[in-house]
Amino acid sequence: MNKIQKIAVLTSGGDSPGMNAAIRSVVRASAYHNLSCFGVYRGYQGLIDNSFIELNARSVKNTINRGGTFLKSARSKEFMDKAGRDKAYQNLLANHIDALVVIGGDGTFTGARIFGEEFNFPVVGIPGTIDNDINGTDFTIGYDTALNTVVEAIDKIRDTASSHDRLFLVEVMGRDAGDIALNSGIGAGAEEILIPEEDMGTERLLDSLKRSRNSGKTSSIIVVAEGDQIGKNITKLADFIQVNLTEYEVKVTVLGHIQRGGSPSCYDRVLASRLGVGAVDALMEGKSHIMIGVNHKEVVQVPFEIAINGEKKIDEKLIRVADIMSI
Amino acid sequence: MNKIQKIAVLTSGGDSPGMNAAIRSVVRASAYHNLSCFGVYRGYQGLIDNSFIELNARSVKNTINRGGTFLKSARSKEFMDKAGRDKAYQNLLANHIDALVVIGGDGTFTGARIFGEEFNFPVVGIPGTIDNDINGTDFTIGYDTALNTVVEAIDKIRDTASSHDRLFLVEVMGRDAGDIALNSGIGAGAEEILIPEEDMGTERLLDSLKRSRNSGKTSSIIVVAEGDQIGKNITKLADFIQVNLTEYEVKVTVLGHIQRGGSPSCYDRVLASRLGVGAVDALMEGKSHIMIGVNHKEVVQVPFEIAINGEKKIDEKLIRVADIMSI
Amino acid sequence: MNKIQKIAVLTSGGDSPGMNAAIRSVVRASAYHNLSCFGVYRGYQGLIDNSFIELNARSVKNTINRGGTFLKSARSKEFMDKAGRDKAYQNLLANHIDALVVIGGDGTFTGARIFGEEFNFPVVGIPGTIDNDINGTDFTIGYDTALNTVVEAIDKIRDTASSHDRLFLVEVMGRDAGDIALNSGIGAGAEEILIPEEDMGTERLLDSLKRSRNSGKTSSIIVVAEGDQIGKNITKLADFIQVNLTEYEVKVTVLGHIQRGGSPSCYDRVLASRLGVGAVDALMEGKSHIMIGVNHKEVVQVPFEIAINGEKKIDEKLIRVADIMSI
Amino acid sequence: MNKIQKIAVLTSGGDSPGMNAAIRSVVRASAYHNLSCFGVYRGYQGLIDNSFIELNARSVKNTINRGGTFLKSARSKEFMDKAGRDKAYQNLLANHIDALVVIGGDGTFTGARIFGEEFNFPVVGIPGTIDNDINGTDFTIGYDTALNTVVEAIDKIRDTASSHDRLFLVEVMGRDAGDIALNSGIGAGAEEILIPEEDMGTERLLDSLKRSRNSGKTSSIIVVAEGDQIGKNITKLADFIQVNLTEYEVKVTVLGHIQRGGSPSCYDRVLASRLGVGAVDALMEGKSHIMIGVNHKEVVQVPFEIAINGEKKIDEKLIRVADIMSI
Repeated sequence: MNKIQKIAVLTSGGDSPGMNAAIRSVVRASAYHNLSCFGVYRGYQGLIDNSFIELNARSVKNTINRGGTFLKSARSKEFMDKAGRDKAYQNLLANHIDALVVIGGDGTFTGARIFGEEFNFPVVGIPGTIDNDINGTDFTIGYDTALNTVVEAIDKIRDTASSHDRLFLVEVMGRDAGDIALNSGIGAGAEEILIPEEDMGTERLLDSLKRSRNSGKTSSIIVVAEGDQIGKNITKLADFIQVNLTEYEVKVTVLGHIQRGGSPSCYDRVLASRLGVGAVDALMEGKSHIMIGVNHKEVVQVPFEIAINGEKKIDEKLIRVADIMSI
Repeated sequence: MNKIQKIAVLTSGGDSPGMNAAIRSVVRASAYHNLSCFGVYRGYQGLIDNSFIELNARSVKNTINRGGTFLKSARSKEFMDKAGRDKAYQNLLANHIDALVVIGGDGTFTGARIFGEEFNFPVVGIPGTIDNDINGTDFTIGYDTALNTVVEAIDKIRDTASSHDRLFLVEVMGRDAGDIALNSGIGAGAEEILIPEEDMGTERLLDSLKRSRNSGKTSSIIVVAEGDQIGKNITKLADFIQVNLTEYEVKVTVLGHIQRGGSPSCYDRVLASRLGVGAVDALMEGKSHIMIGVNHKEVVQVPFEIAINGEKKIDEKLIRVADIMSI
Repeated sequence: MNKIQKIAVLTSGGDSPGMNAAIRSVVRASAYHNLSCFGVYRGYQGLIDNSFIELNARSVKNTINRGGTFLKSARSKEFMDKAGRDKAYQNLLANHIDALVVIGGDGTFTGARIFGEEFNFPVVGIPGTIDNDINGTDFTIGYDTALNTVVEAIDKIRDTASSHDRLFLVEVMGRDAGDIALNSGIGAGAEEILIPEEDMGTERLLDSLKRSRNSGKTSSIIVVAEGDQIGKNITKLADFIQVNLTEYEVKVTVLGHIQRGGSPSCYDRVLASRLGVGAVDALMEGKSHIMIGVNHKEVVQVPFEIAINGEKKIDEKLIRVADIMSI
Repeated sequence: MNKIQKIAVLTSGGDSPGMNAAIRSVVRASAYHNLSCFGVYRGYQGLIDNSFIELNARSVKNTINRGGTFLKSARSKEFMDKAGRDKAYQNLLANHIDALVVIGGDGTFTGARIFGEEFNFPVVGIPGTIDNDINGTDFTIGYDTALNTVVEAIDKIRDTASSHDRLFLVEVMGRDAGDIALNSGIGAGAEEILIPEEDMGTERLLDSLKRSRNSGKTSSIIVVAEGDQIGKNITKLADFIQVNLTEYEVKVTVLGHIQRGGSPSCYDRVLASRLGVGAVDALMEGKSHIMIGVNHKEVVQVPFEIAINGEKKIDEKLIRVADIMSI
């Protein structure tokens, strides 16, 4: 590999709070290492469309506090084909770009891995997704902010729930992973938390709700991950509970896309800053085909195949904490 | 009417941020006038169930900043029958209560009017509802907070919308009135605002969206009041737009119950404080069967029949502002 | 006056949340009227420095939610001299600008009045200041947001105050006017509110604090406008209270500049949108030397001399509400 | 040690967001283990004053989201003397309390260690302080919330700073430790961060500010830990900079007590829930004289002497990140 002099950075997949902070960090770390840095608009599609913009340290001022990504994000079908990737590669060469930093989730890293190996082109990934479903890193950028957003929303719902003796089903993101539901559920003081990793069954849920009603609870919040077995069809679940637990008025709220936005938390800003520096450091060390993650207090380098293929397990001890908290 | 020595206060109907501040104000204004004050749990139902609690100036400390209502709220079917109201009246007498302050919306005032006239019992109302749909008062308690909640939520959604070049339909409260949609829509920088008072028609909406797309807009927010003609079925509307405007990815978010909760804004806290004082002042002046409202800078007394029956009209000039802002 | 075809907009004096929303509104209202619109950097100084930028409807996207002013603000000494204003006028002519919209407070309007009369140049003002100290308008842009910022900050301080049985003196903005202190003080549930319009005297304050301590209060918040007689030297006042009221631990917090920033409230965004439209409407009607304000529900036009010279009086009824609330 | 049947919980020292969540967790974990649980008012002083209250699972509802501590906190001089501790011990015996959970910082743990050894009484600690200055735990309860509070405040100040081309010195908490300053400084995009662990020297600071001014920065935020060498006297430092860097207008803001309050972040709520469960678990295992902390993903038990005496070091890699980010 030749000496790296010019790098490009892009964001891909679903946006997450802190992506701007990560771009900013890559840009400033590039300046620190005397590299020039280009931004690519709309993820991999921008590589194909030759949509580049030069970025210097001043270009990214006043971005650290903003949600979303000013480089925009997209999912590119063209990039899934060899022809699209060829075009992307030719554009990188034409712009004299020596290395690529991609910020996104597992779909992003899957593309990065294929592209990097196909063209032997240096690519480093930064985990930016609210889902915290990447292997090899304790946290992904945006996850902490999303948890706060969910908890603040449920705090508001609780005002109404406890004013009216209602039972609320609140759907949060998490098609495959229950991390957001479990943590925000504990944080919001939820009565029950339904996650994809566990099939509670409607009868057990009902028994539990009846027990807690009898123990003196007059209102309840149930946090439901969108991918949960019985919670998938949340309206149907609400109807089932309403029919069988008539003391409560049962309501449904789907938090939806507010979970992806917002000004990033301090944690996510610092994490993004650390990982952006780590990504450029790694490129300077000649590393490639890796994701930069965080493990305990250290910034770590994780091969893409581990980041993508590994499976994160739900924390059983945290489930116990959730159970005790809803006593 | 005898001299008032003991009053009761209740909250009824949908809860709204600032109801606690209004209760607090009634309690402290009572103390100021050397009246004793009782709280009633669960609105009119609490009158029937004889569910009273004595409240003094210290009982309401640290409540001004809390959403919801610590006296809880409910809709009472029993109170709609004469028999239920008789029971309520007997309980008021048994507890030596001389006057009642009710905090809520038009349903609450309708009940108050009937009850007050039926038993010649002094009742004063305070408008507490996020809908701002009460005649004779510029603002209802909770409306300002709800607007801020909606705008903050849409700010988050906009992060995602502009990162992904998406069009978002955001449903906000407003079955009959478009005030929340119109104001929060302007505040959130919405492209279009759909309100019950105007039937835009799907074709006109589509034309407008196409025009703005052509003018260079790459993402859009449409704020939809739940009672709007074409927005009522928001999923169907989204599908229609998606089919006819394929450049955008169309998404739907229903804000739902988060709009009712949250710590009240400064405006709502001050308004609640003013109206609570106004309510007790009015009772001391021998007034009854009125709502206490705000008109420009003054606290005013509005007969229940006006508060309930009048119709607020949408502000045409504000619609023009909205149109100009989305140019 | 010739037909207006090109206008310029600037922000001057202390910044306030919603200034960006006001600029955006002026820009879009200009587009609506088929005017071209230029922004001026750094207030009047930018006129002198010939620091203009063309703005179209798309230039101001994603600005409505941002605090501060992207056109920047400054106080210009040069503009106070005839020579500076001459230069400013020449630059306006050279850029073919037909009219000027200035966003700021009384200092800004004083400059606008002199300039407008001196050169017979059309100038319209929009009140943008957190102080709400402009005559002829119910509200200035930024005031509502500042109140919410102060109340949220004091909510946090109250957590600590009530956990530790402390008395906190919290200084808020308001050199000449007590509006921020009075309203935020009521909103935050302050025990006492010290404002420039009233001289409470240290002894009366002490008596009142002792009374409320005896009535069972275990912690207290005193909101102090920076211009209050006895609160001006807040450290000295704190020491005085500490020496004479040893049961409390007395602490001081000066909120300072956080009060000027932050994302504007919905109210301020809507107000800014209305006033921006009103300003361009006024120019199209051939009006000049006026401020656009809001009176009850109407947008109004107020001559600069009234906006500047008049004196707003503190609302005595609101002081009574504050007194009752701290019973 | 006999079987534990009844425990008491108290909060001591400076309050921090999440203390209520920790109390709640101890109470519910007690219920889970069929222990009865008492709260003690005002920390150690409450032990001496025999100020206990019985708490069951329902007593702590709607507390997880509240800042401060409903059990109140205090620093007790009496508890520093053997006589005071004797009285505390007698009251614990008289109330048949078998074990104590203390929530606080190093002062709290120092007291706990002495008391536990003196009377061979089971005591377990939970780290609740915004300072994150306890050895043996990655995080203390309240630290994450404080970082978000600081960053949100500086975001507001930045609006003003960048609108006016100003340089702001912002003082944050941290008498001995720079953790809050370093992390919030990175999060807030500070130009410079002054911490007690490093003496930058005024000349080096000035050089750096001049360099960045020359590199095109027009406004700057300097975050200053209150215990920093040159930042200790922040007004003096501001004057020094103003005199030597006249291009900027230099301003000072001291964030003060707002940093201690506020609704806890999701992270702090979950952490508090985990540590509360861990504390009761430890007592059930017969452990004592330990603090419950978190190390990476695990809840750990740390002897008081390690928690108190060890010294946390500032993260040199994070200082490098801060340096690169302000390029």
